[in-house]
Amino acid sequence: MTSPSNSCLPDSESIRTTWQKLAGIVKQTPVFTSETLNRNTGSKLFFKCENFQKAGAFKFRGASSALLHISDEQAARGVCTHSSGNHAQALALAAKIRGIKAFIVMPENAPEVKVNAVKDYGGHITFCMPTLEARESTLEEVRNDTGSSFIHPYNNYHIIRGQAGCFFEMLQQMDEEPDYIIAPVGGGGLLSGTILTAKYFSKRTRVIGAEPQMANDAWKSFREKRFIPSESPQTIADGLKTSLGSKTYPIIMEHADDIITATEEGIIDAMFLVWERMKILIEPSAAVPLAALMENPEKFKNKKTGIILSGGNTDLRRIPWMEKRFHH
Amino acid sequence: MTSPSNSCLPDSESIRTTWQKLAGIVKQTPVFTSETLNRNTGSKLFFKCENFQKAGAFKFRGASSALLHISDEQAARGVCTHSSGNHAQALALAAKIRGIKAFIVMPENAPEVKVNAVKDYGGHITFCMPTLEARESTLEEVRNDTGSSFIHPYNNYHIIRGQAGCFFEMLQQMDEEPDYIIAPVGGGGLLSGTILTAKYFSKRTRVIGAEPQMANDAWKSFREKRFIPSESPQTIADGLKTSLGSKTYPIIMEHADDIITATEEGIIDAMFLVWERMKILIEPSAAVPLAALMENPEKFKNKKTGIILSGGNTDLRRIPWMEKRFHH
Repeated sequence: MTSPSNSCLPDSESIRTTWQKLAGIVKQTPVFTSETLNRNTGSKLFFKCENFQKAGAFKFRGASSALLHISDEQAARGVCTHSSGNHAQALALAAKIRGIKAFIVMPENAPEVKVNAVKDYGGHITFCMPTLEARESTLEEVRNDTGSSFIHPYNNYHIIRGQAGCFFEMLQQMDEEPDYIIAPVGGGGLLSGTILTAKYFSKRTRVIGAEPQMANDAWKSFREKRFIPSESPQTIADGLKTSLGSKTYPIIMEHADDIITATEEGIIDAMFLVWERMKILIEPSAAVPLAALMENPEKFKNKKTGIILSGGNTDLRRIPWMEKRFHH
Repeated sequence: MTSPSNSCLPDSESIRTTWQKLAGIVKQTPVFTSETLNRNTGSKLFFKCENFQKAGAFKFRGASSALLHISDEQAARGVCTHSSGNHAQALALAAKIRGIKAFIVMPENAPEVKVNAVKDYGGHITFCMPTLEARESTLEEVRNDTGSSFIHPYNNYHIIRGQAGCFFEMLQQMDEEPDYIIAPVGGGGLLSGTILTAKYFSKRTRVIGAEPQMANDAWKSFREKRFIPSESPQTIADGLKTSLGSKTYPIIMEHADDIITATEEGIIDAMFLVWERMKILIEPSAAVPLAALMENPEKFKNKKTGIILSGGNTDLRRIPWMEKRFHH
């Protein structure tokens, strides 16, 4: 994997203007605090609530940003992607708002709740076998049939620019720049965007990626300073199973302060804590930064620490601490 | 039951000043909207999120208000109440903040999660048999032993004045006075406070009480224009089982626009909807206003309707749609 030329990287002006252009489309999500969680962790926590974002996750920022750069001619033929997760819903809703078609390739075993969400937003679904090969070849067919433009979930600078708006917005909502900001890392779109925002607008803030120990390809890549792909990981944090991309990997390698990990048990505990004490719903992937912080408390002691609660799309009929793995 | 003299009623000035005095203690909770729920109901909904209130429910407003009126001499001997629910937690936390003792009588079968919350706030618990008689006689013993002051959960004008702050605050957060405000009704403290605030500060707003059909004593009282007590009702909305009190009954009879009811199935559906679509946690009692609205949609069509989400204290290991009664 080669480094991109720096001239390709989203610059500070484009991050700011993208955020401004999306003001009427993307929701300004609140920043919550919790005295109980401050007490529990010894840190001073600020939670950016992207679980309240439209379509239930930060992914809507990136999808909306990408659609800013689709020409009218492209728009007429629609956009497409393959995803069983939040990017599918986000792209379907962003396309609906722009008034264009979204073609979504989903594995036939995708959870009903996610399929229904994409349908509710008017997305056109094509089902495929649940393998990466089938997803990619089915997407290729859909692209050929429709002429639609492929919007990659993270390996796309327009997407990264949109995700950068999350921390950009958070900085404006806080009285002071935080010492740390922790973002979950799957494909690395949110983490890359957060890194660029910190680099341009908050030099004081160190950016940390948080990853499930059971899907620790970014952690390994960062430690070994070479690209290590994700290999069929098993984790409850289903949004964080993917490998880094050619555009996110170099940004993270160069600028992340650290990558830290969380155990499966820790992720479920952190998710439970946020639900019970903060009275908000987050999905397992969104609990990973808090879980990783709680498993590495010394670093964050008495520090102002931002945490991105990345999304809230979870099947309310399958709650992790009520399933077999529940250990309390 | 006789009407109180009007001179006893909290006046507009005392509602405003109580809210102002509590500004550093009680949390200003946000007002949320949801395009999905507006679409589902045909109404224009504004949700006052008291699930985010300290101790997880509006009850903290009333308890904090009551403690403003405890003399230093009384404070030295502490306060007491009997409750298995949100008033117990609220009083324990309010007392802790004031730096005084709270003696809480709880039935021995109270949920562990509620017992632990009271303990966490430093409350002194005395357990009793799970009958109203046992609760009252045990409370009497505690009062005799400690000399503490009894803080009734709703039949107390200081409590009502505190609860009035919820809608008072909401009016300041909205651009326009709503056409309706719906509050759940159990003992009637929140509904009475909401009624007084509307009477003084938003004449345009009609105030509706919402009650479980399975605990419809207030609905019956309102229809028959006489006091009808609650008789061991069975409802999932465990905060709404109590009868109206001598101070809340006359306020509600004279000034409520209507009382409407919700079925058990409707309450669970509404709770599920709020969790899934708004990504916030509410307890069953807090879902009753939305459920009642959805069972009486015509009245609220195209109206600006405020809904008080009264609390978020629910056992996350016992989720109604995952129990046997679940019917989806």
